[in-house]
Amino acid sequence: MRADERRPLAVVALGGNALSPPSGDLSFAVERETIGRAAAEIAGLATRGACLLVVHGNGPQVGRLLAAGIGDPECLDVHVAQTQGELGYLLAEALEARLPGESCAAVVTRVLVDPQDEAFRSPTKPVGAVLAHPPAGAPWVATPDGRGFRRVVASPRPRAVLEAEAIRALLRGHHVVAGGGGGVALATAAGRRTPQAAVVDKDWVAALLAVALDAERLIFVTDVPFAFDRFGSEAARPIRRLSLAEARERLARGVFLAGSMAPKIESAIAFAAETCRCALITAIGSLEEAERGETGTLVCP
Amino acid sequence: MRADERRPLAVVALGGNALSPPSGDLSFAVERETIGRAAAEIAGLATRGACLLVVHGNGPQVGRLLAAGIGDPECLDVHVAQTQGELGYLLAEALEARLPGESCAAVVTRVLVDPQDEAFRSPTKPVGAVLAHPPAGAPWVATPDGRGFRRVVASPRPRAVLEAEAIRALLRGHHVVAGGGGGVALATAAGRRTPQAAVVDKDWVAALLAVALDAERLIFVTDVPFAFDRFGSEAARPIRRLSLAEARERLARGVFLAGSMAPKIESAIAFAAETCRCALITAIGSLEEAERGETGTLVCP
Repeated sequence: MRADERRPLAVVALGGNALSPPSGDLSFAVERETIGRAAAEIAGLATRGACLLVVHGNGPQVGRLLAAGIGDPECLDVHVAQTQGELGYLLAEALEARLPGESCAAVVTRVLVDPQDEAFRSPTKPVGAVLAHPPAGAPWVATPDGRGFRRVVASPRPRAVLEAEAIRALLRGHHVVAGGGGGVALATAAGRRTPQAAVVDKDWVAALLAVALDAERLIFVTDVPFAFDRFGSEAARPIRRLSLAEARERLARGVFLAGSMAPKIESAIAFAAETCRCALITAIGSLEEAERGETGTLVCP
Repeated sequence: MRADERRPLAVVALGGNALSPPSGDLSFAVERETIGRAAAEIAGLATRGACLLVVHGNGPQVGRLLAAGIGDPECLDVHVAQTQGELGYLLAEALEARLPGESCAAVVTRVLVDPQDEAFRSPTKPVGAVLAHPPAGAPWVATPDGRGFRRVVASPRPRAVLEAEAIRALLRGHHVVAGGGGGVALATAAGRRTPQAAVVDKDWVAALLAVALDAERLIFVTDVPFAFDRFGSEAARPIRRLSLAEARERLARGVFLAGSMAPKIESAIAFAAETCRCALITAIGSLEEAERGETGTLVCP
């Protein structure tokens, strides 16, 4: 983009599954290819007129660092920042390759969470390697996950994005990658800001930024083409459109999977309620069709 | 800083040695402390009126990733980006802690190098672990380093910083961390941009940005308080001030160590020649004294 250009902003929340293959292959060569394919599709939004803010997940990439021995679960903040560098670079480079003459910048992003957030009382987000046994004496919670045990950390709501004004400044002239992995989670207590053993959901950060930056669109790009009623059963039925009331009612009934579709629906509701615009949930591979209204789930005011 | 504030820009090239302790301890706890101390000193420049652009080294941090098994020497680009996330976050957070009410943003940075740069014909920069034996059949050059063998890669000159305009936009209202580890090295050939097995010297990137952004000052913060004549000998003599002619003459005589003081003097010359301002070389721990002219080496037009 040129520095003087103002285009309608599309915030794209890009799932970790669009950034690493279903095979679980964690080689950088495969990661580069996978990101190239995702970027080609997202770049289409820019070609069709949007300014992009990409908020990516980082689950497999944090897992790789934690599994490699340099990972220190007490330093989740540093590892999230490392994956922001990694994926920010790869996405910026892949997007620019598909958008000749346009620029993309990746910014390291920190978010504030509330140290009193109830999420800290019931950690739910698994991080790092699968362990054969729950570690004796570890200062954290582990949970069985079918193959063994994994550490779980809190997933508190983001209250503010420290780099919001930096992102706003960059969007005048650049596509931006920010809020990666939900941002580095920090909390202020007794006047001092400290890193938290927590993972913020990137969908929530995407919605927070989309509202703050007055985005025209908020698009959740995941690995399923729709939100579903009765997901996982034979009677699964794709949802094409939800009003806020319908979305809230289904959330209350627990229709959507925690840590997966539920945060997308919740943050879609927040965006739609604040901006009076629709949020879209769709799959990588279906973005252009979804833009034309042929697939995907819309959450609308 | 406030968004409308314009302060004279100080570009600080911060050596890897200021970011990890001489003990070689690579724990994140020690890294955090070391960075906190460096940030406290650099923040003083802002307290005394400057807007900061910090360009940091990353040698020990890239080494940690390469040594940990996730490191793939063919993916130096990704590892440099990971360390930009890590150190960008830690520096931004440490600077803000010491500059209440001011903001600091870290931007992932890519640099273009010339694929015909003569540095590619004679790689000199050691990266990664010390190996007991030179690896048989590896597609790269290894060099003895006293304790064993290490891979060496090229250290070409940076020709352009892809994020220069992004950094300029951020500097209106933020201190900025950018160009970390000299930036991710990329080259364009046959219309396609590809990552290079190369490490760009952060001192050169600092000078390139200082000229492009019309910085008032360029300060190299390293682990020695001066450039020296006869460095390492008993007759070592600190240099207080060099004219461009004196600096060039000493460079030609090989007075300064390659990969260490030589690139600082070379990039100090480039800055002084382009801007008609002095560049300063000093040690962490001596920054305030050096600002007052009581220590440090000045390279002046």
